[in-house]
Parts: sequence; structure tokens; C-alpha cells
Amino acid sequence: MKEISGGITSVKGIKATGIHCGIKKSKSDLALIVSEPMAVASGVFTTNKLKAAPVIVSMEHIKSGRCKGIIVNSGNANACTGRGGYKDSKEIVKLIAKELKTSPKSILIASTGKIGTPLPIDKIKKSIPLLVKSLSSSGGKKAAEAILTTDTMIKERAIEYNYDNKAIRIGGIAKGSGMIFPKMATMLSFITTDVSIKDELLKKALKRSVDKSFNMISVDGDTSTNDTVICMANGCAGNKLIDRAGRGFKLFQEALDFITLHLAKRIVRDGEGATKFIEVKVQGARSKRDAKRVASFIANSNLVKTAFFGEQANWGRILSAAGNAGVDLDFGSISLYLNGYKVVERGIVSYKEDTDLIEVMKKKEIKILLNLGKGDKEESVWTTDLSHEYIKINAEYIS
Amino acid sequence: MKEISGGITSVKGIKATGIHCGIKKSKSDLALIVSEPMAVASGVFTTNKLKAAPVIVSMEHIKSGRCKGIIVNSGNANACTGRGGYKDSKEIVKLIAKELKTSPKSILIASTGKIGTPLPIDKIKKSIPLLVKSLSSSGGKKAAEAILTTDTMIKERAIEYNYDNKAIRIGGIAKGSGMIFPKMATMLSFITTDVSIKDELLKKALKRSVDKSFNMISVDGDTSTNDTVICMANGCAGNKLIDRAGRGFKLFQEALDFITLHLAKRIVRDGEGATKFIEVKVQGARSKRDAKRVASFIANSNLVKTAFFGEQANWGRILSAAGNAGVDLDFGSISLYLNGYKVVERGIVSYKEDTDLIEVMKKKEIKILLNLGKGDKEESVWTTDLSHEYIKINAEYIS
Repeated sequence: MKEISGGITSVKGIKATGIHCGIKKSKSDLALIVSEPMAVASGVFTTNKLKAAPVIVSMEHIKSGRCKGIIVNSGNANACTGRGGYKDSKEIVKLIAKELKTSPKSILIASTGKIGTPLPIDKIKKSIPLLVKSLSSSGGKKAAEAILTTDTMIKERAIEYNYDNKAIRIGGIAKGSGMIFPKMATMLSFITTDVSIKDELLKKALKRSVDKSFNMISVDGDTSTNDTVICMANGCAGNKLIDRAGRGFKLFQEALDFITLHLAKRIVRDGEGATKFIEVKVQGARSKRDAKRVASFIANSNLVKTAFFGEQANWGRILSAAGNAGVDLDFGSISLYLNGYKVVERGIVSYKEDTDLIEVMKKKEIKILLNLGKGDKEESVWTTDLSHEYIKINAEYIS
Repeated sequence: MKEISGGITSVKGIKATGIHCGIKKSKSDLALIVSEPMAVASGVFTTNKLKAAPVIVSMEHIKSGRCKGIIVNSGNANACTGRGGYKDSKEIVKLIAKELKTSPKSILIASTGKIGTPLPIDKIKKSIPLLVKSLSSSGGKKAAEAILTTDTMIKERAIEYNYDNKAIRIGGIAKGSGMIFPKMATMLSFITTDVSIKDELLKKALKRSVDKSFNMISVDGDTSTNDTVICMANGCAGNKLIDRAGRGFKLFQEALDFITLHLAKRIVRDGEGATKFIEVKVQGARSKRDAKRVASFIANSNLVKTAFFGEQANWGRILSAAGNAGVDLDFGSISLYLNGYKVVERGIVSYKEDTDLIEVMKKKEIKILLNLGKGDKEESVWTTDLSHEYIKINAEYIS
């Protein structure tokens, strides 16, 4: 497995583009990703009960397991827009399908941006011919740009590995305005691969991969109206079809996991106003579920996050947050390390001076290791601190 | 029922005081509340799995249903302090009991402040004689001061009502550094009354009252290591004992509810860095549980809270937060009003200009009314916006 340059268009048979259609003032806001041969596809969508129109349309269309292309706009989420919003998403999909000479069912759609305002559908419609015309096998970066909102950098990655004497590639792009842990800003990711794989196995691999990556930077059930991850696999690598959970599947899963985890961490690093990248690893739990729950409560706590921003020796907030997870805990069996610095060991407070701890807190990368001393299961989640900049961005940005 | 001046010492047979013992630099940090006759008492304590030492001690002692006094320190939470912390709380209680010539079991204890640092027990011990000596039937305000941490104002209230031809009084004090919704800063409240009531009825009344007040400004299960509410009733009013759920009980419940709801709202208003007081009322739910859950998700959302701080027309964030509560919702049946201004009615976006909505958002008191259109149950919760000042306070304050 080796990293290669580029993102979604580093994969054979994939073209993409991004243009400015006028939803945003001047930045690009409309992306299209197309596979030359019809691809198999799988998606993971928001669990929010108020799903945006594009999510509803994509969930309908992906049932077929086939996908020719994905159209994405940023700047307007087309969420809380009722029947009109649904019709708009359907119409866009229909127009793209017509241009690509394919069935509307094979087109998926995603949106991100302001909630509750009708899509400027005419601007999008007018731009579709140009959008399709500008598709290019080097257009991945343009697509990566056009899906951003408050992100400060594009997120793309590609890798290559060998199987069945073929070079197989996976590429991905993502957007996620930093939030994530403070819930509900939209996360989008689109992954392409030229592997040949059966649709139900792609589905299985994607679900697993998302659970270990994008779902570890957000908390169970806390998702925006628009969250979407789609993976399309077009078979252009020419490997023999992966149709069972053997070696070929295992290799693909590993490569896919690499891409999704990389993109998930990139989203955290680009967190709104983030000044620190924080890994919360919970060990010694009775179950993986317990470990994830405790880690999520810590990573979600505004008090923990502001403590890291302030670089203060407030480790008690970490334990207090852990105690709120509803998981059985004893202070006497708990150990806590910050970047390897021992703070508490089996209920004994081990650090000597606040100043030592403040030195640790000054680092840009923080690893919180909490051992519950109850079992042998572990999980990690990733988050950021909570800064003045976060408040500024979210108080001023309309989304 | 009429409001009277003062707080806990407006109640017959109650003395209180607050002094500086040296846990904090210069502000008062040690409070004592004593009932001349032995009182019946009930308490509601944190559900956090890592309960602070004073909480564990108070939970043991309150089993008897009797209480002579409550000792409270601020500046140090005595949480995550292991066996040593437990012994410290026990020792303080013993010393107070000795001074008051009562059993240690009749003394309750609470602490709030920094987690994980041993109590400066010598400072407290040394101050106990002075503390007891300074008890006064006008010392309520001093106690109200001595329990504060990042609070900017004391919180006390008292009322009087008639029953059985007797004037019955209830007084209360509280502290809660604003947080609350962003979880886990400590909330303390101590309520005194001269009513004569059976201990199990006091317990019932307090539980109900806390559920409608303090539990409506915090979210189920999200509590600090130290949260404590205690009510003591000493019978000095001389009414015939309330020993069943009749008229006397009903009147007491109403009066107690008035005090707890008042104190709870005062805690929100004094929220860390709060610039707005926000009521979230959810109507039209299938159950009260659904209503509370949706309201809590809205009130808990950093994106909603920063939108109000920024005074932007980001109403979509309110619906997105609602959609995360796991409660069945349809955009088509939802109505949303902000201070009576119609934003969405049964899925139709009704407001015309963002500028209209921005006018509403500029108000200091905001009422979010969300009707789910699914049933006839409703609940309200109270919260604040999330401001730069919140980040500043929590990044710099060590607690």
C-alpha cells in the first residue's frame, strides 16, 4: 500500500470538476464526480430525523447499488425546505442524468450550507452544461474545493495497493467545517475506487470503515441534516471481482480504512478555530461500546475543550466528563496520562506541579489516555479544543 | 404566597454564616447553615459516576432523614481525591458536629471548586470555631456568598404562605457557574423551611421540584461530580404535621416549586459569559419525555447557542438540533416561533427577510417555541447563548 498524489481523480475511469455557479459570492460551489463505466456504490447518511432533500433523494437512488455520478453543491444545504426542496434536488439529478445520458436513479446528490433557504435552482440549472463540459481526469482538486464551506483547506488523499496482479487505487475528498464534536455541522465525503467488488461487499466495507473513522470524530446520533459519505467502485483496475470476504476484501478494507481515517483526522485538524488536535483514547473498558461512550463524553465536553484552549492543568474536567457517560467507574481504578505524562495512577494523583502539566497542555498535539481499569477493551476518538475563533466563526457565519 | 426579603435565614430557627478560611485568595469560601431544632431533610445528588467525597458522605448521612447543619466550602471540590478526600470530608463533619453538640450523622457537607487537589484541611479545621461562633439569624447572605465560584452575583430567595393559620416560610440559596448547559460545572442549592412535614413527604416534594427546575436547566445525566440540592424542614412554623398528600402538601409543593424554579433561572441568568436568557419551549410532542429531549438538544447545541450570541438568522440550526434528539419528526408538521415571530408554520417557511429575524435575535430574552405537531405534551428548558466570555472564563479559570 503506497500513498499517491491527488484524490478522487487519481482513480482510473473517474472524472471530476468544480465550478462557481453563484450560490456563494465568488468561491466555487458546484462539484460533479463521474465514473466512465457505471460503478457500484454505497452510502452512509445522517441519522438526523430532519434529513435534507438531497439526502432523501440519494437514499432512494442508492438502493439500486449503481452510480454514474454525484452532484454536490455548497453554500445552501437544501434542508428544511419541504416539498419544494425535494423537487429541486430531483430536478437537478434529472438534468445531470440527461447530460450524462444515464438514468436519474444512477445520479446521487449532496448539499451543504445554509439551512431553510430554497436552493437558487436557476443558477444551478444554468451551470449544468458548463459543469459537465469541464469534467476532467485531473479535476479532483477542483471538486474538493467546491464542496467546502468554512473549511480552511481542501481535504483529499489517494493510495494504491496491489491485488490479483493489478494496481488498485482509492481516492477520497471530504469537507467538514471543524465543529463536528460540538455537533451538527455538515460532514461530506466522496470516495472513488477502481476496484472490482460486489455491491454488498462494498456496502459492508464502507459501513465498517465509517464506524472507525468519521463516526469517531462525531458522536452517535449527533449529525447534521446533510451528512453523507458515498463510495463508488467502477472496476477499472481489472482485478477479478471481489465477491466474498477473503484476502481481496481484507486488502480493500485496509486501504479504504486508511483513506477514511486520514480524511476524518484532516476534518478534525481543520476544525473551526481549532488550535489543538486531541486524541482521546480510553483503555481498560469492559466493552468497546463503553470505551467509545466515555471517550465521546470527554471529547464533547465544552469544559474539557476550553481547558485545552486555555492550557490549564484542569485534568479534573476530563474525569468529570468521563463520569457523565453513564458507564460504571471507580476513581480508585482509574489512570490518566496526558502525552505520556502520568497524572493519576489507579486513583492516586501522581503529578507534582501544575506547571509540569501546563507544559504538556501547551503542545499542539494532545493525547489523552484514560485507563478505566475495568477490562481490556479500547477505543479512540479525535477532537479539538474550543477557542474564541470557534465562537467568532459560528456567531458570524450563516449556515 | 408572598415574596419576602432574604433567603435561608428568613426562615424561623435557621442560622447561617460565611467566612474566608483561605481556600480562595480573599473571597469567602466556607459556609455553615444550622437549624436550631433538629430538622428533617432530603437531598438530590449528582448522577455522575465519579461522585466527590462530600457527596458520598452526605448521601450516607441523609439516609437518617435528619439534619442539624450543612457545611459547604467553595474553591476546592474535594473530587477525584480518593480515600484521603473521603477522610477529609468525614473529619470536617465530625468537628462541626462536636462544636454543635450533635451526631456527625446529622451534619451534611458539600464542596465546589477545583477537582483533584486535596482539600486544605488544616485551613478549614482552624476556622471551624470562628465559623460556628459567627452563626447568625441574619447570616443567610453571607452563606450565599461563601458558596460561589465563578458566579457574578449571589442567588437567594424567600417566600411566605399560610397554612393551618400559621405563616410558613421557605428560603433558598444557590450557586452555579453559568455553564450548566455546556455541562458539568457544579450546581449547589440549599433550601430551608420552617414547615412541619414528614420526611418521606419532604423527599417526594423535593424530588418533584428539582425535576421541574434544576433538572430543566441541565440535561439528564449531565452533572458535575459535586451537584447537590438539600432541603431541611425544622417545624418551627408550628403547623400541624403534614403527613399525607393533602392540601398542606400541595401548598408546600407550590411554594417549594416557586423557590427552586426562581433559583434555577437565576443560575441560568448568571451563566458564564451569558448575554442572553433563552427559554426553549417544545409543544405538540407525543410525550413529555420527547418534549424535554428535543428541548434539551436545542438548548445544548453549541451551534444554536453561538447563533444567538451572533444575533444571526440561523433558525435552521434549531431544527437541525431538534432532529438529533432521536425523536420522530416531520418537517411538514413543524412550526417554529422566535419571541412570537413566525419562522416556520407546518413546514412552510413563513418569515420574509433575514433582517426581521435579526431584530428578534437582538433581544436579551429569547423564547424559542417549537411545535412538533405530533401530540399535546410540552416542556420548557432554560439556557443561555455561548459567548467569547464563556471561553475566556473557562479557559482561564482552574476548576
